[in-house]
Amino acid sequence: MRLKIRPLDSSFYEMFTQSAQHLVTGAALLAEMLGDGNDKAEVARHMREAEHAADETTHELVRKVNSTFVTPFDREDIYALASALDDVMDMMDEAVDLVLLYEVHTLPNETSEQVEVLQRCAELTAAAMPRLQTMRSLEDYWIEINRLENAGDRSYRRILASLFTGDYEALEVIKLKDVVESLEGAIDAFERVANIMEQIAVKES
Amino acid sequence: MRLKIRPLDSSFYEMFTQSAQHLVTGAALLAEMLGDGNDKAEVARHMREAEHAADETTHELVRKVNSTFVTPFDREDIYALASALDDVMDMMDEAVDLVLLYEVHTLPNETSEQVEVLQRCAELTAAAMPRLQTMRSLEDYWIEINRLENAGDRSYRRILASLFTGDYEALEVIKLKDVVESLEGAIDAFERVANIMEQIAVKES
Amino acid sequence: MRLKIRPLDSSFYEMFTQSAQHLVTGAALLAEMLGDGNDKAEVARHMREAEHAADETTHELVRKVNSTFVTPFDREDIYALASALDDVMDMMDEAVDLVLLYEVHTLPNETSEQVEVLQRCAELTAAAMPRLQTMRSLEDYWIEINRLENAGDRSYRRILASLFTGDYEALEVIKLKDVVESLEGAIDAFERVANIMEQIAVKES
Repeated sequence: MRLKIRPLDSSFYEMFTQSAQHLVTGAALLAEMLGDGNDKAEVARHMREAEHAADETTHELVRKVNSTFVTPFDREDIYALASALDDVMDMMDEAVDLVLLYEVHTLPNETSEQVEVLQRCAELTAAAMPRLQTMRSLEDYWIEINRLENAGDRSYRRILASLFTGDYEALEVIKLKDVVESLEGAIDAFERVANIMEQIAVKES
Repeated sequence: MRLKIRPLDSSFYEMFTQSAQHLVTGAALLAEMLGDGNDKAEVARHMREAEHAADETTHELVRKVNSTFVTPFDREDIYALASALDDVMDMMDEAVDLVLLYEVHTLPNETSEQVEVLQRCAELTAAAMPRLQTMRSLEDYWIEINRLENAGDRSYRRILASLFTGDYEALEVIKLKDVVESLEGAIDAFERVANIMEQIAVKES
Repeated sequence: MRLKIRPLDSSFYEMFTQSAQHLVTGAALLAEMLGDGNDKAEVARHMREAEHAADETTHELVRKVNSTFVTPFDREDIYALASALDDVMDMMDEAVDLVLLYEVHTLPNETSEQVEVLQRCAELTAAAMPRLQTMRSLEDYWIEINRLENAGDRSYRRILASLFTGDYEALEVIKLKDVVESLEGAIDAFERVANIMEQIAVKES
């Protein structure tokens, strides 16, 4: 079940790198959305475009894997990695969406920490993706993503606690909780991406 | 890993079609639940029966795939399709359940749009399922489900926004949000079913 | 795809049993957390340790399966079982975490029923795990877990209903709902563990 012959065809790695690039774009739009004085509707429109572009890349990947006989690594790992990258984009898109939909004007301060974590995760993932081809130096990437996920988790938990200190009324808590949960979900999805990449590296090395 | 010999044994297709038929029943009961002047407890009981019947079909499918050596398409795709169909029923059952449990009397109007989408998705899925055997004309089904999912998503987002316009108090918002999220979850699950069927069609064609 | 030669190497079964033992510890800590007069911060610290220990075991399992050529049962079933056991621990950890984070002082009475179900599920799962090796007498385990899951579900639904009877204000409902949903999620995860074990037993017998 585990193919040891790795074909030279590098298009899979290119598609995965492209997929990760979309996440860099998405994380940047997220930062814009939360920044003051930006046209939220405009940012949301760009986010939707980025999300469609990401879907297209995922679709290409699935078509490619289904029409390729010898894949560079296990077929199921390719599906898993593609859909994990897809999950990240969906969660970032959801966060942007909810801010607009709920007409959220101000978010708790720590939310910007979550977004910084997301931007850093996106850059690291995009940088690591091409290294899948050589399976070299993925360890540092994996460790750093896990460190970032822990930092994001601490911010998330501080935000959750802050929502119930009495500064917010219930309806506002429901809205803000949805937004920060989407951000936390996106960070967790980045960790899943890293775990899948580690697993592929272990298998193929 | 990908079997090209497709055995004549059609019982898999029949079980999948039966599984989709349960969803048609479930969606109809959902419409009844939201309709006025129906005995909600009675509808919920019928829903539970439909959900058990669906579980039974899923179980048969799993037993069948585990005891069959050459399956009509990849074993993992059969599991994935069976559990995606199962997810739809679980989400519809949850929605009915919550309406009863929370003693929800009136839902936002757009909720009926979500239910219409669910009924249409169920009919389309039940009609498409037998076509898995020939892998023919699944494209139209897939496109239509995706169109419906987008329509459902727009209704869902309008409902979410409407919950925070001040017409509802916080406790009511929490209840209604749970119900409409279950409905949205069921629609998403129908899209997953369609995506898995498309993937199978691509692989096997 | 289905290996019939089952190697004598029993380390997989030992690791799975160890993984289930961590859940017995976690469920006991959960009971402590909800008991009166315990140092919640202290219990949460122990829970975190238990969760890290469980992660370590899961990691060992994944490394082992990736470095083993002939596994005692399907590679994908080993992954599925390991991650289902992991999900249980994550949900129990989340529940403990939220009680501390939200400064929840009193939970609805039925919450103790959910915790009793979790403790029973953990003991049964730990006892059943070694039996994977012989595939014998897993039926009783599977039936009992399903019975417990149904009991837990009834408690969960009674709690949900009770949250909206007017005894709690909205902010409190949001907090308590998160906690009881984590507990319900942990019980559901135990059922997934049982379903995966049943599927393995059916396949391999």
